[in-house]
Amino acid sequence: MSIRIGIVGYGNLGRGVECAVKHNPDMELVGVFTRREPQSLEILTETANVYSIEEAVNMKDDIDVMILCGGSATDLPKQTPQFAEMFNVVDSFDTHAKIPEHFEAVDKAAKKGGKTAIISVGWDPGMFSLNRLYANAILTEGKDYTFWGKGVSQGHSDAIRRIEGVKNGKQYTIPVESALEAVRNGENPELTTRQKHTRECFVVVEEGADKARIESEIINMPNYFSDYDTTVHFISEEELLKNHSGIPHGGFVIRSGKTGWNNENTHIIEYSLKLDSNPEFTSSVIAAYARAAYRLNKEGQNGCKTVFDIAPAYLSSADGAELRKHLL
Amino acid sequence: MSIRIGIVGYGNLGRGVECAVKHNPDMELVGVFTRREPQSLEILTETANVYSIEEAVNMKDDIDVMILCGGSATDLPKQTPQFAEMFNVVDSFDTHAKIPEHFEAVDKAAKKGGKTAIISVGWDPGMFSLNRLYANAILTEGKDYTFWGKGVSQGHSDAIRRIEGVKNGKQYTIPVESALEAVRNGENPELTTRQKHTRECFVVVEEGADKARIESEIINMPNYFSDYDTTVHFISEEELLKNHSGIPHGGFVIRSGKTGWNNENTHIIEYSLKLDSNPEFTSSVIAAYARAAYRLNKEGQNGCKTVFDIAPAYLSSADGAELRKHLL
Repeated sequence: MSIRIGIVGYGNLGRGVECAVKHNPDMELVGVFTRREPQSLEILTETANVYSIEEAVNMKDDIDVMILCGGSATDLPKQTPQFAEMFNVVDSFDTHAKIPEHFEAVDKAAKKGGKTAIISVGWDPGMFSLNRLYANAILTEGKDYTFWGKGVSQGHSDAIRRIEGVKNGKQYTIPVESALEAVRNGENPELTTRQKHTRECFVVVEEGADKARIESEIINMPNYFSDYDTTVHFISEEELLKNHSGIPHGGFVIRSGKTGWNNENTHIIEYSLKLDSNPEFTSSVIAAYARAAYRLNKEGQNGCKTVFDIAPAYLSSADGAELRKHLL
Repeated sequence: MSIRIGIVGYGNLGRGVECAVKHNPDMELVGVFTRREPQSLEILTETANVYSIEEAVNMKDDIDVMILCGGSATDLPKQTPQFAEMFNVVDSFDTHAKIPEHFEAVDKAAKKGGKTAIISVGWDPGMFSLNRLYANAILTEGKDYTFWGKGVSQGHSDAIRRIEGVKNGKQYTIPVESALEAVRNGENPELTTRQKHTRECFVVVEEGADKARIESEIINMPNYFSDYDTTVHFISEEELLKNHSGIPHGGFVIRSGKTGWNNENTHIIEYSLKLDSNPEFTSSVIAAYARAAYRLNKEGQNGCKTVFDIAPAYLSSADGAELRKHLL
């Protein structure tokens, strides 16, 4: 029998989850739940339906894992606890500072409902976190580095688009190659914000807009750009659509550490991602953890979990003997 | 209270485990167990003792986890099941083809004794296996690549040293940079053995030995060298000791896969290691899994496990709340 999946929210992430379910033959999509008018929404899966989010409460027996694809700012802090009481759930809550309180709220709800919830699934938090944990457990004396990019930052692109005279814009976060190399060489550099990443902006302006003012506003914007070396390119709308409509991302988690009786040996552990589509990759991680949520719940392991709490074998559709034979 | 560790076998790996225990403040080394005359063996830890391997049976209550540091060819197939009936154990069994039968034998013994055993711990098998599993679970459609090196292959170095006229030798396995780049670019190349790695040998010969014959014997040696492009350098014993006495290693696990409704997006997941000391890194992984074995046994989770079966949080000395706050 397939694992029956529901999706709450049909933005980039929800669409990504729909694709990921297609790539996992042991899963089937039952429905997409939306706050919009269900008829207004067209999905790709012919065998699945679109429902109003209010209908979810009546479908507890039809869905094994509900995947919550809303935003971390306002949607998930409410939705995940609410749904975790009724369904096994997976979310990609990514406000790092608020993870502890989100965990507590979801844990309470999931335990009350006898459900299994997995929060903060994706690549950061998610696969990057896992790699930080493994590397720290192995190299107890060392230093962690995380670099992001090259990739599109949605938050920074939005910030550009809010400037007067800007019609459209995309911002790429780019790791500084020389900083990466120093870390890889085990030099354990102390790196400032400016030394780790640069920012590159592609901006489309309204007719007659003051480009010099816009460039200056971008480069000097506090929090977003002022601590970085930022480059601004003014391009046409056509060029933006042609060359910058993707949502690529990626990054590097590196730990450099010492072993030996007198710390005489250096080791570098590096994990990196190069992603054509940030939301589709995140969704693919989520689908694997949906399988884990389903299995853990069958075993009676209720409450809130993170990627740290889940044995890797739960993610795979293959059984233990197969995994030992082919992947170990 | 500390986790009390025993080491069976005091070669490179045993010495590495001794160093790793020093780097983990929640562990203490109780003793090293050896087949040699205990008095003949000097260890680094002043607070630990050296025992004859026969004495282990009398120390069941003094040791929480016994770490088996023998070889995979003849030691571990006997020792791990034998010790797993008396102790929680961790080994680094690395004969990939024989892992299933080793698992069965160890599982039976550990369950009989109510103990927890973790086998095949290290980096390959070990961290590389984990990364293969995670990447396969996320990118269900894709292709796996493993490259080893640059590093010393003990087996190939031994093979060189068995040739008549060879006094000493070291062999490095080196990944082919252009093959790595093709994989990283998502080209999904089909690579032959020769296209993935080259082999570089540093050889010290006896006085008057026939270098041309030795070079030819190396390059044409079946299984070890004949399928590779091999370079042979004749050097002096002094140069070998000065520049080639380390045991560095490392490698790359890369999965390239597709997502999207019509597989339109490509993603690259890469995990790499650059290790000054192969045995010390392996030992550091083992120490983290010794902590897991200890905890799992406290929870009553007996039998044989591999890295696939163990939730990452068990490896860390930090608790769940700390991990979520600092590493997620």
